[in-house]
Amino acid sequence: MSFVVDRQFFTFAQEEPFRLESGATLSPVTVAYETYGTLNAAKSNAILICHALSGSGHAAGLHDEADAKPGWWDECIGPGKAFDTDQFFVICSNVLGSCYGSSGPPSINPATGRPYGLSFPVVTIGDMVRAQVHLVDHLGIAKLLCVAGGSMGGMQVLEWAAHHPERVGAVIPIATTARHSPMLIAFSEVGRQAIYADPAWNQGAYYDQPHKPDAGLAVARMVGHITYLSDESMQQKFGRRLKAREKYGFEFQTEFEVESYLKYNGSKFTERFDANSYLYVTKAMDYFDLTEATGTLTAAFHRSEHLKYLVISFTSDWLYPSYHSKELVRALNGVGADVTYLDIESSWGHDAFLLEVETMTNLLGSFIGRLAREAGV
Amino acid sequence: MSFVVDRQFFTFAQEEPFRLESGATLSPVTVAYETYGTLNAAKSNAILICHALSGSGHAAGLHDEADAKPGWWDECIGPGKAFDTDQFFVICSNVLGSCYGSSGPPSINPATGRPYGLSFPVVTIGDMVRAQVHLVDHLGIAKLLCVAGGSMGGMQVLEWAAHHPERVGAVIPIATTARHSPMLIAFSEVGRQAIYADPAWNQGAYYDQPHKPDAGLAVARMVGHITYLSDESMQQKFGRRLKAREKYGFEFQTEFEVESYLKYNGSKFTERFDANSYLYVTKAMDYFDLTEATGTLTAAFHRSEHLKYLVISFTSDWLYPSYHSKELVRALNGVGADVTYLDIESSWGHDAFLLEVETMTNLLGSFIGRLAREAGV
Repeated sequence: MSFVVDRQFFTFAQEEPFRLESGATLSPVTVAYETYGTLNAAKSNAILICHALSGSGHAAGLHDEADAKPGWWDECIGPGKAFDTDQFFVICSNVLGSCYGSSGPPSINPATGRPYGLSFPVVTIGDMVRAQVHLVDHLGIAKLLCVAGGSMGGMQVLEWAAHHPERVGAVIPIATTARHSPMLIAFSEVGRQAIYADPAWNQGAYYDQPHKPDAGLAVARMVGHITYLSDESMQQKFGRRLKAREKYGFEFQTEFEVESYLKYNGSKFTERFDANSYLYVTKAMDYFDLTEATGTLTAAFHRSEHLKYLVISFTSDWLYPSYHSKELVRALNGVGADVTYLDIESSWGHDAFLLEVETMTNLLGSFIGRLAREAGV
Repeated sequence: MSFVVDRQFFTFAQEEPFRLESGATLSPVTVAYETYGTLNAAKSNAILICHALSGSGHAAGLHDEADAKPGWWDECIGPGKAFDTDQFFVICSNVLGSCYGSSGPPSINPATGRPYGLSFPVVTIGDMVRAQVHLVDHLGIAKLLCVAGGSMGGMQVLEWAAHHPERVGAVIPIATTARHSPMLIAFSEVGRQAIYADPAWNQGAYYDQPHKPDAGLAVARMVGHITYLSDESMQQKFGRRLKAREKYGFEFQTEFEVESYLKYNGSKFTERFDANSYLYVTKAMDYFDLTEATGTLTAAFHRSEHLKYLVISFTSDWLYPSYHSKELVRALNGVGADVTYLDIESSWGHDAFLLEVETMTNLLGSFIGRLAREAGV
């Protein structure tokens, strides 16, 4: 049994608009978030968790005792877990542009009284993190003990380290990159093209229509799901097994288990995610390049040499291959930072960061334990 | 300048229907094909080339002197090339189920006078190859010197070796597998789902409609294109470069070069390929499993130990990773076959079989030279 937690909301930029990297502004800005554990008197035990593309601020616990599933990283957040809520105050917020309570394309534009749709401004990973800085200010926390996250969550983690180094003591970027590769951009774009191709998308103006672009969004999600697995994990999980039949049907029905898995997950996703948010969040990832302003990764981290880093990658992750993490580690070594790096042997592909619970628990637990000891928490 | 060649047609099963692996029948069956070079008097110098998913029987030369592009493997087929048409008689035919002149879903069903659409029977790699056997019979060739092809072409090559070993002296399976993996099935299925999701697909009955399912087919092709490249080749080819602009646009337009490449290729593909054929041909690939009847690969080749094999894979091909070829080579060693295997160092991913022309020319040329010497051609 997990604990019950409430989603909270913080709204800022009601008067002075929030200026985005694009130059556009947003006003007001709402951030949906959850917290687990108790902030100590010194406000020195706060850990921020950053979520991935399809995640939300609901990282742990249940919203209701009847909930079938807990938050997305419940295996690692809670009493006695890697992010031990008996000792730490853990925060997770939904990113800007998403659809789990923070401002995004499905939000109501106060100027029109209708959902923004495509009139919502394009946001970046930097914008998402600056909204998190506002939230941390609101919670009265001057410095986070640590920021952690995998995949797009890891991009936010690196953004914290590079651009807000005075506000965080340590970071844990997992299965991520400092620079979105052309292959990653290509997969993002295919997902977006699948959504654009759905007539129900209607240039993003579907909120008051009878149909949403579910078919396009489902295809985008199916592509995503393949990339989160690995050739080996698919062999283990599905092989060439047929679903609920013994022989090939010689027809265009779902026959193989792997087809059934993709179709189920594609369809389920449309019940919980917004197609426009998929466009915005993938676009933010595509724009992510910490070297853009500085030219090199070493230069990007020149103010961040005093942070502690735990960098984690997985051997079978072909979406964010280990070389991305190794480049990062080289750059961090270049500025003389305190870096621990592990390339974890796993067959689970990119999803390993959510599935290798025992290894992750040991690794995260001991790193955070060390942070707590050194910070006197 | 390349030579000019004509497409030819061979029709069989006009009286006795062609029985497919599914148990369904097809009548008549048309095979579109081309030949290059001259069949010798002994009919001992014939080489059959098998094409991949989106290919055709137009493997070399031009259809017209004004053609902008020659056939798909023109770099390797022609006078003095790897498949030297001064010495060999090279045949390439369009596979059943495709849309380049052989019987497929866009063909007219003689029973109705209208295109088959989804009433075309589902075909297998085995069916495609048995149609090729009919063509080879028609050409009066008792035994092919060699059968060669990459990707799905390689599956046909293996089918020839395993099921028609008395009709071929040697085979060259390139960048392929004897058993379509769940990851390959998953990518096929995503492509099919993108087509199904397009309302213009209309359950395959779009031939007399004003719109074809171009949007869905383009998405399917874009997914395909990513899988034919490699992370490294995309870094080399595109990097994070923007197309025709210097700064991020912060809008949902094609901005990165890799996006532009995908969109262009997706769109171009709809001008030349049929969406239903995409369904049929990918389905045939998904069903391909040489171990299905026999349990093991060694058993699948138990009648094929007297053939000569040149097996080729590419180090950066993550779609048909080298381990597929290595498993095949182990099985062929197991039956005591004459096998040459090369895992070619290349950064071009699956597309390497079309791009590594110099390496391929040397390798194919010397293997075929040996075959010709040994066969006294």
